[in-house]
Amino acid sequence: MKHPDALRIALVGIGKIARDQHVPTIAAREDVQLVATVSRHGAVDGVPAYQTLEEAFAAHPQIEAVALCTPPLGRHALAQAALTAGRHVFLEKPPAATLAEIDALRAVAQRAQRSLFTSWHSRYAAAVEPAWQWLAGKQILRAHITWKEDIRHWHPGQDWILEPGGMGVFDPGINALSIVTHLLPRPFALCEAQLHTPENRQAPLYAKLAFVDTAGVPVTAEFDFLQTCHQRWDIEVETTAGLLMLSEGGAKLSINGQPQAVDASGEYDGLYRRFVQLVRSGESEVDVTPFVHVADAFLLAARKVTVPFAW
Amino acid sequence: MKHPDALRIALVGIGKIARDQHVPTIAAREDVQLVATVSRHGAVDGVPAYQTLEEAFAAHPQIEAVALCTPPLGRHALAQAALTAGRHVFLEKPPAATLAEIDALRAVAQRAQRSLFTSWHSRYAAAVEPAWQWLAGKQILRAHITWKEDIRHWHPGQDWILEPGGMGVFDPGINALSIVTHLLPRPFALCEAQLHTPENRQAPLYAKLAFVDTAGVPVTAEFDFLQTCHQRWDIEVETTAGLLMLSEGGAKLSINGQPQAVDASGEYDGLYRRFVQLVRSGESEVDVTPFVHVADAFLLAARKVTVPFAW
Repeated sequence: MKHPDALRIALVGIGKIARDQHVPTIAAREDVQLVATVSRHGAVDGVPAYQTLEEAFAAHPQIEAVALCTPPLGRHALAQAALTAGRHVFLEKPPAATLAEIDALRAVAQRAQRSLFTSWHSRYAAAVEPAWQWLAGKQILRAHITWKEDIRHWHPGQDWILEPGGMGVFDPGINALSIVTHLLPRPFALCEAQLHTPENRQAPLYAKLAFVDTAGVPVTAEFDFLQTCHQRWDIEVETTAGLLMLSEGGAKLSINGQPQAVDASGEYDGLYRRFVQLVRSGESEVDVTPFVHVADAFLLAARKVTVPFAW
Repeated sequence: MKHPDALRIALVGIGKIARDQHVPTIAAREDVQLVATVSRHGAVDGVPAYQTLEEAFAAHPQIEAVALCTPPLGRHALAQAALTAGRHVFLEKPPAATLAEIDALRAVAQRAQRSLFTSWHSRYAAAVEPAWQWLAGKQILRAHITWKEDIRHWHPGQDWILEPGGMGVFDPGINALSIVTHLLPRPFALCEAQLHTPENRQAPLYAKLAFVDTAGVPVTAEFDFLQTCHQRWDIEVETTAGLLMLSEGGAKLSINGQPQAVDASGEYDGLYRRFVQLVRSGESEVDVTPFVHVADAFLLAARKVTVPFAW
């Protein structure tokens, strides 16, 4: 049952992430309501479907907000149109195709006095908050990210990920960066990066990154998109009080090898709760730090060309 | 003759740009004084030379500011050390190796209550201010940058430019971007980019960029580091009131083909005037927009591998 004040949303880009996460989350929450979808091909059973934002707004002027789940290239134009038309905007990750686009959107949202939310779903994984609480005040010695998954299993046929701007292995890797930038007490910056890109594609399938934080603590990462066996989304943080391990993308936590109990709550549930809160309080949340680290990696990397990739 | 209150400066990284620009500019101005140099190999006749910042500060505690002319990789650590030691910092372009490093430096400068200046020398080219004045209030239809120079002539043997983080043709190209981001009335963002990188190097020798501003005006650029004949550093801006052409890197201006008179003043003279002004008023100037566009180009580009490069 929806609350009478539920935020009336149009969902744009009905692909894998919209179907897997946004649609069931919106359906389950009382405080958001799916009014329309906008997509070239996709639709959601029982929900009016349109080809363009303008058609959706014309048919349903009561739409208050849009959630953009299209690929990053082109998302900026849709966000600008929605903000200019007076709608609040929820951006899937990464928030745009470029950093300059986000700077521009931030200004548009301010002028339009609408909420802009650059969402990072992994920050809402169940064990991230308990991990943050355990780390608070502890002395951190190093942090390491291992993000290794099989692109063929998780993104079958999604060619855009390997096209210019698709970011390749940083598409999942930015999730790890979104957690670590939230978890660690000090900002960090990239010192060295290696990227491996197949000769027939534009985006890397492998990345090795070395950062250092402002107190000299090393933060390292290894991202691999060709992991066929054991899939790993792990973040280790070594402190003088022991080793914290976040695993399964932030869903599980252990301290010194001892599993910790965490509440089971969905990432997208947390994201939509936050978005409604931002809209109702007239605020925006625009954090581009994870995306800055990806841009820095592309800027600074030593590149290696590897064997061709085929699905 | 130096003014008794001249800003006492240490110059770090005595390479081509320091010798060609910083040393003669500091020598010519009354309000800045070169107290020491810090460099692994270089020195300046008659000026005490040190290997490290710490040695220079120990020998000359009266040093108030440092100007960093080392290559971008490693500049951040020097800037952080100087700010933490209570000195103001002038950064050559690009201000650091990564965007995250600049974010961190901004915070360090704030805490240390010292001035941080991300310098963009081309903004002080003689015709940039008159161009800005002519463009004010005019309706802009398109802008195009042509930046074509011979790396072998202008950067002989400077391998670091073609190494990871050296930015290749963006080392000169960022100068054009620093002018255009200052000249145009609205921010713009990258839509499409092509980069050509020789198979034996890490940084591109050629870039083709297409931006669009927030009102839909196209801004395009072509950067070529292998131009052997006519060297070109031109910016064309077409308006409903005619065509503005900035040439020779911002030194010359013509309107509708008619050359315009401009004052002859040195770029570095303007930079040091601005730096002294920032220090004396307790302010910082940290504008990363040109660097954001370079990072966006690396992030978004379609890449092509080309024939090997040799000096």
